[in-house]
Amino acid sequence: MVAESDNRGGKLMVTAIVLLNAARGRVNEIASVLAEMEGVSEVYSVGGHYDLVVVIRVHANEELADLVTEHMQSLEGIEATETLIAFRAYSRHDLESMFSIGL
Amino acid sequence: MVAESDNRGGKLMVTAIVLLNAARGRVNEIASVLAEMEGVSEVYSVGGHYDLVVVIRVHANEELADLVTEHMQSLEGIEATETLIAFRAYSRHDLESMFSIGL
Amino acid sequence: MVAESDNRGGKLMVTAIVLLNAARGRVNEIASVLAEMEGVSEVYSVGGHYDLVVVIRVHANEELADLVTEHMQSLEGIEATETLIAFRAYSRHDLESMFSIGL
Amino acid sequence: MVAESDNRGGKLMVTAIVLLNAARGRVNEIASVLAEMEGVSEVYSVGGHYDLVVVIRVHANEELADLVTEHMQSLEGIEATETLIAFRAYSRHDLESMFSIGL
Amino acid sequence: MVAESDNRGGKLMVTAIVLLNAARGRVNEIASVLAEMEGVSEVYSVGGHYDLVVVIRVHANEELADLVTEHMQSLEGIEATETLIAFRAYSRHDLESMFSIGL
Amino acid sequence: MVAESDNRGGKLMVTAIVLLNAARGRVNEIASVLAEMEGVSEVYSVGGHYDLVVVIRVHANEELADLVTEHMQSLEGIEATETLIAFRAYSRHDLESMFSIGL
Amino acid sequence: MVAESDNRGGKLMVTAIVLLNAARGRVNEIASVLAEMEGVSEVYSVGGHYDLVVVIRVHANEELADLVTEHMQSLEGIEATETLIAFRAYSRHDLESMFSIGL
Amino acid sequence: MVAESDNRGGKLMVTAIVLLNAARGRVNEIASVLAEMEGVSEVYSVGGHYDLVVVIRVHANEELADLVTEHMQSLEGIEATETLIAFRAYSRHDLESMFSIGL
Amino acid sequence: MVAESDNRGGKLMVTAIVLLNAARGRVNEIASVLAEMEGVSEVYSVGGHYDLVVVIRVHANEELADLVTEHMQSLEGIEATETLIAFRAYSRHDLESMFSIGL
Amino acid sequence: MVAESDNRGGKLMVTAIVLLNAARGRVNEIASVLAEMEGVSEVYSVGGHYDLVVVIRVHANEELADLVTEHMQSLEGIEATETLIAFRAYSRHDLESMFSIGL
Repeated sequence: MVAESDNRGGKLMVTAIVLLNAARGRVNEIASVLAEMEGVSEVYSVGGHYDLVVVIRVHANEELADLVTEHMQSLEGIEATETLIAFRAYSRHDLESMFSIGL
Repeated sequence: MVAESDNRGGKLMVTAIVLLNAARGRVNEIASVLAEMEGVSEVYSVGGHYDLVVVIRVHANEELADLVTEHMQSLEGIEATETLIAFRAYSRHDLESMFSIGL
Repeated sequence: MVAESDNRGGKLMVTAIVLLNAARGRVNEIASVLAEMEGVSEVYSVGGHYDLVVVIRVHANEELADLVTEHMQSLEGIEATETLIAFRAYSRHDLESMFSIGL
Repeated sequence: MVAESDNRGGKLMVTAIVLLNAARGRVNEIASVLAEMEGVSEVYSVGGHYDLVVVIRVHANEELADLVTEHMQSLEGIEATETLIAFRAYSRHDLESMFSIGL
Repeated sequence: MVAESDNRGGKLMVTAIVLLNAARGRVNEIASVLAEMEGVSEVYSVGGHYDLVVVIRVHANEELADLVTEHMQSLEGIEATETLIAFRAYSRHDLESMFSIGL
Repeated sequence: MVAESDNRGGKLMVTAIVLLNAARGRVNEIASVLAEMEGVSEVYSVGGHYDLVVVIRVHANEELADLVTEHMQSLEGIEATETLIAFRAYSRHDLESMFSIGL
Repeated sequence: MVAESDNRGGKLMVTAIVLLNAARGRVNEIASVLAEMEGVSEVYSVGGHYDLVVVIRVHANEELADLVTEHMQSLEGIEATETLIAFRAYSRHDLESMFSIGL
Repeated sequence: MVAESDNRGGKLMVTAIVLLNAARGRVNEIASVLAEMEGVSEVYSVGGHYDLVVVIRVHANEELADLVTEHMQSLEGIEATETLIAFRAYSRHDLESMFSIGL
Repeated sequence: MVAESDNRGGKLMVTAIVLLNAARGRVNEIASVLAEMEGVSEVYSVGGHYDLVVVIRVHANEELADLVTEHMQSLEGIEATETLIAFRAYSRHDLESMFSIGL
Repeated sequence: MVAESDNRGGKLMVTAIVLLNAARGRVNEIASVLAEMEGVSEVYSVGGHYDLVVVIRVHANEELADLVTEHMQSLEGIEATETLIAFRAYSRHDLESMFSIGL
């Protein structure tokens, strides 16, 4: 059964996927810095049109706002970002409990 | 400490993020079908340029090949896909153990 | 003083701006239908790259999810949508009170 | 009943939506400055392809011209703008009266 | 001396330039039909990225709205339009008087 | 009756529409300079994808070549140009006589 | 010495380069048909973004207008065209005499 | 009868069309320099998306390689190039003999 | 030592890389058909912007022309192709001998 | 019979095709440097939208990660890269044995 967890603000998890392009040759360095940021769940260096994909899992919209516009976008070496904010999550995993401890 | 898990083929996890556009008005229906597929970890309906983001976590490259080219791309209602295959994962979570049970 | 109202999920307002392209010659008809939808604050037919701009003001993220993915995107005659979900609102107006009566 | 207020020059309201990209890490700072400008009704920092969306409500076309080409576009830190001038507004709200006091 | 005529709504001229792509082989036919429309000043078939450029000169914004969204966009054979609404006109010619007789 | 004036080189009028992007905040300044150039009929600051639209009306192709490649494109502050050279003009106005006095 | 032949309307040669995309698998067939058209000097099937490049050499602008908008664009199987009209030609060859016999 | 001259390497002619964008205001200067290069048959300054179109006619692929990658692309002032290498040429003219004397 | 084999027409190898998009769900089927074609060295189904990458190694330009424009492009299910014809090959492998037996 | 070699991590070959744009005039120089890198099988300078195409053949995903993100992307003079990681290879050649000696 797919747990269709609506991204209810407040209690449950607000998720966003950020597509990033980074300065030539600094992809891994920037990935490590991003992965340390509060609210960043995972960072992947990828093949294709983008250099990095960041998965954000936070509790409320304004945490998302701070993380993306205050911390991530001002990180030196980041050249372009496109933030895809999740309406709904569909998963056989219970993502909330898996990720909520020590989010 | 950020666990920099290289996507070693074979034993460990191979991850890919697929960006999808779906037929008008069928986003949620298609998200549910995708989330049931073996190897699909999470599906998010999102705002922005794309309609859906699919996170795939499998054990080997050819599972990824089957899932994307045989199952996902042939799903009726999917209009465009862009698969971003991960080189490396960076996370404070131990993603392998979290997701490896019953992948 | 600019009221910087973070889009706090739950109590306050969640805002999104949807950029739309509509079938040739049906722009005004579709604008009227959209403007009647619960949660749609304003619809503008515009010059430029897009045909319509829809301003959505709702109370919680999942209302936004329903409105965009269930109702708007499935409206016949809509050809492409790009949903820009607001992180934060900045305005000299007290948008919450202005729009919260009978949202 | 949807109030279809044609954007009559002169007496009633002329509306435009400006899509903006801002210099890395200066999104919130620039949003605050824009929101103070005469004729700017609301500014939203957003996820997706653009960084900011500005809603302009003025009384006549040349106020719009001054605001966009003289004040907004010359603001340091703004990298790209696309101005979508409204032909018509459709809304259950009486936007003119709501916004005309102290425009 | 360049007459900088602000596009004052009401009395003076509201100008817009519409960039159009038309169905293969019907460029000239569609140009003739457009040129007959009230408010259309000139139509040019052109080389380059677009097929046709339409110059509109009307008295008020809502005439522009009717012409573009009601009449032009619904003309069969028109495939894509981008309307560039003029903020200001700069010309050594007195465009208002030249074009206002029998607009 | 629409006067379909083929752009015959030599005697009659050669028309081109140039779409321009200008340096941030210098749109009006550059519009004024362009409008003074021999062969430039009108310049419009516009909303949408481009900043300026220039209408050129000259007597022969090489006047067009000089104006665009020698004078306009080398004007400091102009960032991108796309010249749409007219094949044919369609208009209820007698554009040739209107614009030929003192072209 | 490079012969800089301005594309003087009337007596000398008016040149245009048309970039074309054709229906799958019909590139060679369409190239042959185009090459037979009056005013078409050469047609090349090419690698890269486009399928065909057509070089047109005619005596006056309106011949160019007829050829492109009446004959070429209406040819069944042609999907997209972009016409680059030449301002000036630069060549060590005397293109006019080479191509003017039996244009 | 259209002479369908396959671009046979070695004896016959290898043709390529290069689409170029040049630094603002230097289009004519760069066109003249290109036209002097061995293997460059014609250079056109054009309206539309590109600034210059270069027609190359040489005897063998590696002459093409030298000309484009060694000489043309390193010419100061050239900002972007797209080389369309011809598979086949179709023409009523006998291009080989016309252009082979003193190629 | 890197063997810089200029793509000499005639005796040695002419190489091209074709980027392909295929109809939804038919990627593997089309890859198998392409791989059987004379002159096709390898076909890869890939992640990213394209679906398939085809490596062509033939002896002369016109074999390349036949293969791409006659056989590949007319294959049902292929939606878009971009052919990148190689100027030069650089490799520590002796590609010519490796691939020339039974090309 | 086409050898459909799934890109099994570990034992067999992991292949990727990297599309590259290089600084003006440095295409050949950069191609030579890339071709010397461990894991780079072939480099082609090409006509079309990109400047270089690099074929990578390595034994495991993390070799691919190192080569692309550590070595290739940080090479001075490389302006944009798009890495297409292969799901599957289809070829009449036995690519594994051909390329595995001294990979």
